[in-house]
Amino acid sequence: MTTRAGLRPYNFSAGPAAMPEAVLQRAASEMLDWHGSGMSVMEMSHRGKEFGQIATQAEADLRTLLAVPENFHILFMQGGGLGENAIAPLNLSRGTVADFVITGSWSIKSQKEAQRYCETRIVASNVSGKHTSLPEAASWKLSDDASYVHLCSNETINGIEFHELPDLAALGSKAPLVIDFSSHVASRPVDWRRVGLAFGGAQKNLGPAGLTIVVVRDDLLGHALEICPSAFNYKTVADNQSMYNTPPTWGIYMAGLTFQWLLQQTEGEATGIAAMELRNIAKAKLLYDFVDTSALYENRLAADCRSRMNVPFFLRDESRNEAFLAGAREAGLLQLKGHKSVGGMRASIYNAMPLEGVQALVTYMREFERSHA
Amino acid sequence: MTTRAGLRPYNFSAGPAAMPEAVLQRAASEMLDWHGSGMSVMEMSHRGKEFGQIATQAEADLRTLLAVPENFHILFMQGGGLGENAIAPLNLSRGTVADFVITGSWSIKSQKEAQRYCETRIVASNVSGKHTSLPEAASWKLSDDASYVHLCSNETINGIEFHELPDLAALGSKAPLVIDFSSHVASRPVDWRRVGLAFGGAQKNLGPAGLTIVVVRDDLLGHALEICPSAFNYKTVADNQSMYNTPPTWGIYMAGLTFQWLLQQTEGEATGIAAMELRNIAKAKLLYDFVDTSALYENRLAADCRSRMNVPFFLRDESRNEAFLAGAREAGLLQLKGHKSVGGMRASIYNAMPLEGVQALVTYMREFERSHA
Repeated sequence: MTTRAGLRPYNFSAGPAAMPEAVLQRAASEMLDWHGSGMSVMEMSHRGKEFGQIATQAEADLRTLLAVPENFHILFMQGGGLGENAIAPLNLSRGTVADFVITGSWSIKSQKEAQRYCETRIVASNVSGKHTSLPEAASWKLSDDASYVHLCSNETINGIEFHELPDLAALGSKAPLVIDFSSHVASRPVDWRRVGLAFGGAQKNLGPAGLTIVVVRDDLLGHALEICPSAFNYKTVADNQSMYNTPPTWGIYMAGLTFQWLLQQTEGEATGIAAMELRNIAKAKLLYDFVDTSALYENRLAADCRSRMNVPFFLRDESRNEAFLAGAREAGLLQLKGHKSVGGMRASIYNAMPLEGVQALVTYMREFERSHA
Repeated sequence: MTTRAGLRPYNFSAGPAAMPEAVLQRAASEMLDWHGSGMSVMEMSHRGKEFGQIATQAEADLRTLLAVPENFHILFMQGGGLGENAIAPLNLSRGTVADFVITGSWSIKSQKEAQRYCETRIVASNVSGKHTSLPEAASWKLSDDASYVHLCSNETINGIEFHELPDLAALGSKAPLVIDFSSHVASRPVDWRRVGLAFGGAQKNLGPAGLTIVVVRDDLLGHALEICPSAFNYKTVADNQSMYNTPPTWGIYMAGLTFQWLLQQTEGEATGIAAMELRNIAKAKLLYDFVDTSALYENRLAADCRSRMNVPFFLRDESRNEAFLAGAREAGLLQLKGHKSVGGMRASIYNAMPLEGVQALVTYMREFERSHA
């Protein structure tokens, strides 16, 4: 499979996605006996001191990594982004109104699901432009009475990213901002002054599928609808340090190992998330610059909202798609097929993808273009 | 930690619980490259052919193992037993009435949570006897109009097990039976003729925490309340082969390895679940027989409902509890402390616990009793 002697192929999956090899190696080595405990992490009571240590460390490391202020809770939950599409309005909407900024497939799903629990208002949308640009914040028609404003800060399927979060207060809204940051969490800093709730499935940038990360501001707890399941009530989860129900212990452990790996990363003077951001900017620039100068490939998105994490691109001659994918697999470049709703190709270049992986992709793409000219 | 040269200690955790060592070894060996795919299972798209193969095989193996009839769906979900306490009534209650048989901590939690979605009626309870025996099925006051009847077929905390499921039709109820079989699934056969829905967290007998197994009869799909989150709607999950949202892929993989391990087990002529049942009967008998003849230890439950999986016991002199636990750890016998709501000790002896582990426990208990006489 791989063409790099002894090395694994580069995996461009949109999620579940590539993980740092060092993290996988550590997990394999500790599989039967975590730190002399005589147990695999999977075999530990979530209420025992060993797992307590793992969970506490993971939370502290994530807080450090993302610079999460003290007035925010970090929750380890289950259900993923799709679960949160219901869980967020169950906890925050109070059955009233929520505003939605529609920028792609995920924000559409969020808005549709929230309709079960409150009135939803689409205050901005890029649907007429087929999700190729972001609606200007100044044009959003925010409600006076919204319980929250939802946006997806990186649309995994469409490849659109908010490079700056809106300042809702400056736009005249008193509502807290809810962001679905599943597919770019930990790839860049978060401006918590502008956020009330952030949620994300772990399976893109943080760990295995089945773990959901929720970061929620103090004052947003305790307002859940009566119909909110206890296991998904943010206050209940927070009051029980994410152990009201048995948490996804392996996911927390793997995410914790990833947090430690992230904290150790450096790029020049930068460390942690700052280092990752520099690296992610460089990776994305390399790929977009190549696509933009190519005669075969194209990216159809406005330059100011192109995602650093998910790079959809098309072959102008789509009859070559299968040949492109087959050659990529041969070259050790995996899972490049685009989402069925968009078509074409998509390279997801999350934190675990090194610059060398993007270089290998560009080399392959250039060679494919040359040989198929 | 372990006193058995080169071997791991015996882990009596109630859950997350011990897993078969062969399964852990296999997972460690495949961690960086599953079957030459160049990916860890955690790195695979859930929609790719590799993971599709893993999930399909896991479902087929579980169907074989538990002899699940064709008119039942097997769903891989998230949220655990506590999540299901809400998810089951959201899907089945139709906002009307549900009957509850109260036999211990878990059925109490289920009934309380269901009150958010329907009228709940306690049709039988062992609370006056402090959850030490099962209420006779003939005495249950079943409703004419119940949408379902709930019971917990093995109460993990109290150590009470239904050794025969009730035949609701024979008791005059037309409602489907819902069982929470979290802590004894795959330890014995299930009489599916008597069951409409069975759910369980995987973390006791099947795999890691974060995976929930749901087995639901065809005709019970499609009746969810409008407020049921899509990600937890059985019909939506079934229609999408458990991939409506990203499933807990690692959990499905580990459970799948466990299913394969279970299918390979033999005990005399018996294989699979039948073999496990024989082994579990022998393990439980060894421990209960010893406790019943001891002057120091006691089990306070009626003999006909003692769990084969979770064996709570007390030291008649509770001042020796700490010494007992410390000595057990020294002897390589882990996580024997009882649940805080019951006190004393609890030995959970799930499928992954070999007879030798129970023998080692009895040897230790006998020695402790002798030396503290």
